Amino acid sequence: MNLQPVFDLVQLCHLKGIQHAVISPGSRNAALTIAFARHPEIKCYSVPDERSAAFIALGISLKSQLPTVLICTSGSAALNYAPAVAEAFFNQVPLLILSADRPPEWIGQRDGQTIFQENLFGRHVKAAYVFPSLENNESARQAGHTMINEAINTSLSEDKGPVHINIPFREPFYPETGTLYGSQESLPVIPPTSNQSLNWKEGIDSICHYTKILIVVGQSAKSEEISAALSLLSIKYHLTVIADVISNGHDVAGVISSQDIFLKNLGNESLQPDLLITIGLSVISKNLKIFLRTHKPKAHWHVRNESISPDTYLALSQHIKADALPFLHELPKYLRASANQRDFQAAWQAVNTKTKAHIKNYTSQSFSDFNGYKRVLLALPDGSDLHLANSMAVRYANTIGLAPNKDIEVYCNRGTSGIDGSNSTAIGTALMSDRPTYLLTGDMAFLYDRNAFWHNHLPDHLHIVVFNNQGGGIFRMIDGPSQQPELKEYFETHQQRDAKWLAQEFDFEYTACANHEALEKALPGFMKPGKRNLLEIFTDAEESKQAYKELFRKLTD
Amino acid sequence: MNLQPVFDLVQLCHLKGIQHAVISPGSRNAALTIAFARHPEIKCYSVPDERSAAFIALGISLKSQLPTVLICTSGSAALNYAPAVAEAFFNQVPLLILSADRPPEWIGQRDGQTIFQENLFGRHVKAAYVFPSLENNESARQAGHTMINEAINTSLSEDKGPVHINIPFREPFYPETGTLYGSQESLPVIPPTSNQSLNWKEGIDSICHYTKILIVVGQSAKSEEISAALSLLSIKYHLTVIADVISNGHDVAGVISSQDIFLKNLGNESLQPDLLITIGLSVISKNLKIFLRTHKPKAHWHVRNESISPDTYLALSQHIKADALPFLHELPKYLRASANQRDFQAAWQAVNTKTKAHIKNYTSQSFSDFNGYKRVLLALPDGSDLHLANSMAVRYANTIGLAPNKDIEVYCNRGTSGIDGSNSTAIGTALMSDRPTYLLTGDMAFLYDRNAFWHNHLPDHLHIVVFNNQGGGIFRMIDGPSQQPELKEYFETHQQRDAKWLAQEFDFEYTACANHEALEKALPGFMKPGKRNLLEIFTDAEESKQAYKELFRKLTD
Repeated sequence: MNLQPVFDLVQLCHLKGIQHAVISPGSRNAALTIAFARHPEIKCYSVPDERSAAFIALGISLKSQLPTVLICTSGSAALNYAPAVAEAFFNQVPLLILSADRPPEWIGQRDGQTIFQENLFGRHVKAAYVFPSLENNESARQAGHTMINEAINTSLSEDKGPVHINIPFREPFYPETGTLYGSQESLPVIPPTSNQSLNWKEGIDSICHYTKILIVVGQSAKSEEISAALSLLSIKYHLTVIADVISNGHDVAGVISSQDIFLKNLGNESLQPDLLITIGLSVISKNLKIFLRTHKPKAHWHVRNESISPDTYLALSQHIKADALPFLHELPKYLRASANQRDFQAAWQAVNTKTKAHIKNYTSQSFSDFNGYKRVLLALPDGSDLHLANSMAVRYANTIGLAPNKDIEVYCNRGTSGIDGSNSTAIGTALMSDRPTYLLTGDMAFLYDRNAFWHNHLPDHLHIVVFNNQGGGIFRMIDGPSQQPELKEYFETHQQRDAKWLAQEFDFEYTACANHEALEKALPGFMKPGKRNLLEIFTDAEESKQAYKELFRKLTD
Repeated sequence: MNLQPVFDLVQLCHLKGIQHAVISPGSRNAALTIAFARHPEIKCYSVPDERSAAFIALGISLKSQLPTVLICTSGSAALNYAPAVAEAFFNQVPLLILSADRPPEWIGQRDGQTIFQENLFGRHVKAAYVFPSLENNESARQAGHTMINEAINTSLSEDKGPVHINIPFREPFYPETGTLYGSQESLPVIPPTSNQSLNWKEGIDSICHYTKILIVVGQSAKSEEISAALSLLSIKYHLTVIADVISNGHDVAGVISSQDIFLKNLGNESLQPDLLITIGLSVISKNLKIFLRTHKPKAHWHVRNESISPDTYLALSQHIKADALPFLHELPKYLRASANQRDFQAAWQAVNTKTKAHIKNYTSQSFSDFNGYKRVLLALPDGSDLHLANSMAVRYANTIGLAPNKDIEVYCNRGTSGIDGSNSTAIGTALMSDRPTYLLTGDMAFLYDRNAFWHNHLPDHLHIVVFNNQGGGIFRMIDGPSQQPELKEYFETHQQRDAKWLAQEFDFEYTACANHEALEKALPGFMKPGKRNLLEIFTDAEESKQAYKELFRKLTD
């Protein structure tokens, strides 16, 4: 077998800007492993559990916005990537998956570690390829160059996402002693084509006809430019801006952030927009979605330079195929400050301000999850990264919100909203940053992804808070399951495990607390940088439920 | 939403013989959860990590040979099933996967926990269905009945395997208080059609033309009838029978089991068969595969009542579509004992006997993996189940073999040969049996599947031996990676974890040993039934490699 095309592949990855690879061990993928490990400009991480490996790669790409390479052996290995690949697809995070495979003549012949690897990820990758033959064949080699260029360009174009190249290897997998493979100087680098639509500005001038304009920011990476542009629109033109906690818009001037609370019981139609503008990806606030689906705007513009145009509010009237920033910069040309616009914004801001004050002042008597999340969020230091696990962690954070003056970057796996890879994703972003990384998670999400720590790359600036209420507390919150006799066993899946053993096994400083005083005492030390640590906050699920219900009840009163 | 079809589904599962369901928590799958949990005849297990849940279900089905139901919520949950589903597909184990989904109008609309769930498992299920609408519609309800019958029949027909029904649910997911759902008495039960080919006996009489007949038994469930039939063929007609450790044929009279050792360096063509007959699924012995691919038989009959006919030895001449037992019972009609047949068998048995004696007498000076596996296998009590993890555990067991007079049933995930679910699969079979279950595993496979223990159903008759050589020792055994500078970091993925913390967390009695004396001292207590326990055997990877190489070297001398 001629391994030169594999070394070409690595060099082309480098020439196209790729900087990181996460490798899981195997024999079939040996040539890939060796070629990546030997490249001086690509940093490699060895992670044995492919499920965690893929979420770690996802985290790395979230920070770098470049495809991180994933390398695994043949058989079921790549199937373990699937949860993170789906998350990357829906959250539009670039990944380049390289799975080693048996050669085609051995597929379905009951040979070991052989499954159907072509198109393994179905619709959850942007493109799937089979690498050309590794026999000595110059045409095949050149076709490989083109394929790698195309795969990386696809991964990065428009809506970014994962791409998959399946690579069949025949034995021997290892370079013979003495064989030298170099990286050819003259490998062809094909630049991506621009996908920016040229006529996206058409029709934007009609914005002057609307007087109740609402901008909803979905999940987005942190961007000072976007925050500044939104702040200008909010202050100067009185456009109303709503930002979920995962939108990284908490520093936008006059931003609305408590919508999930105050829209819950609101019949007030004065908040109905005539034009809804959405940027970014998904929103968490279910009550916002219900409100907008019920009180539909006359028009809904979805602004994003992507090929698909989801209709989250069943009101989509125009898909503006542009990046958010040039669009936001374009808007002022057509806007004038108006009293109607100001009144509409004032109506939103009034109820938002009232709600925020209520949340700020509310403290439950018992030691509840709400109190714990509020206290921890308040204590987050300036200049830190915040990871929110799915289920209740991201919901509490969305309810409580972030201080507008703090430089905090928020991450959450909202592509598929699974609980399956939060620990690993947090490790991935932490590996790419010197900022302290805080992961807020429940006991179920934390224990689900317990293999996240099983490798030799654990960063020291990783700080984990586990809110342990002995099960999936979210099910107690929802009316449906909480009224069923199966609640504890089959919904909450009541469990009495804690994070102590994992903390010891993986060398985290560990502190447990189960009341206000202990939490106050633990927080300053926990927040300090230095050594990776884990704070476990034990609460009672039923008391936390009552505390959360009371928060809403007192607001309505 | 009308939940009656969901209760019908459960009752039909019961009427079709299904006895077990493994449920992972979620809201979208609430109606499924409730309906299964409330059925008096179906035993439910709640397991939070879907990856482990699916391997536990696989283990349950391995024992019951009936489809075990898997239930999960929408989003990435079902993707975590994928590794076990592929294993079930290639190892022909029946599973009925029921994934809850959003209704179709919300797919791709950036709503939470929504992925493309239809055909999620691609070619790794025998059939994939979308359940009919749960609106009030009698035709849809009846179509559901037919679908459930067909799915279960497909799962059980010919080559058994997994089937997938994706079920879209609209809110509300929970039965309203006061609504009663019963199981209708008159649900239609459609029996499976017989797939036995009628003319499978044609051509079998040509067997009398062959004088060097070799039967290779691939992976099979334990069967006294098959062992007896093979023993008769071996003793009376001098047919040569080869049985890997996973074939459960170690009690066949005169069986060949050390082929993986003695075929390694053998140039002797006297062992070349003229007729190769294969039953069962895959074989482990790579050297047997290489030998038969090089010394091809004149004819190869693959006997199995399945639709596919893999050509593992690239010599397939006839696929006999019959179950193994009637085929083996039919053979004597056409056979006569012959001197040639006897000589051929004697040649195999001579080298096998010599090799077995060598293995029995060989002990390495250092405390090696070989010594540890040999000692543990020897100590296994009569009437037990043995699980072998992939990678080195199953290879050592195949080298060393099992005592022919012991009632031991062997399990190993050789469908995809992944290391990913051994712990969970062992728990699954243990849940279905009162026999003590022994899992022999390496540190990598054990730690990979560490979430296997995270639920409330851990059996006490589970005994785990972890052979800890701090990484994937198999890579040191293979010439290719052992000569690369990347061996330790990227192939072995050297790791210094041990099983102690997991043992403590999940309440296993724990013993560690690192030399002969400690192992001898620990074994009697460890093998005793009573409390689940874990024995960790620490060895040095390099010493184990040298010991294994010496075993082969001394044999050749």
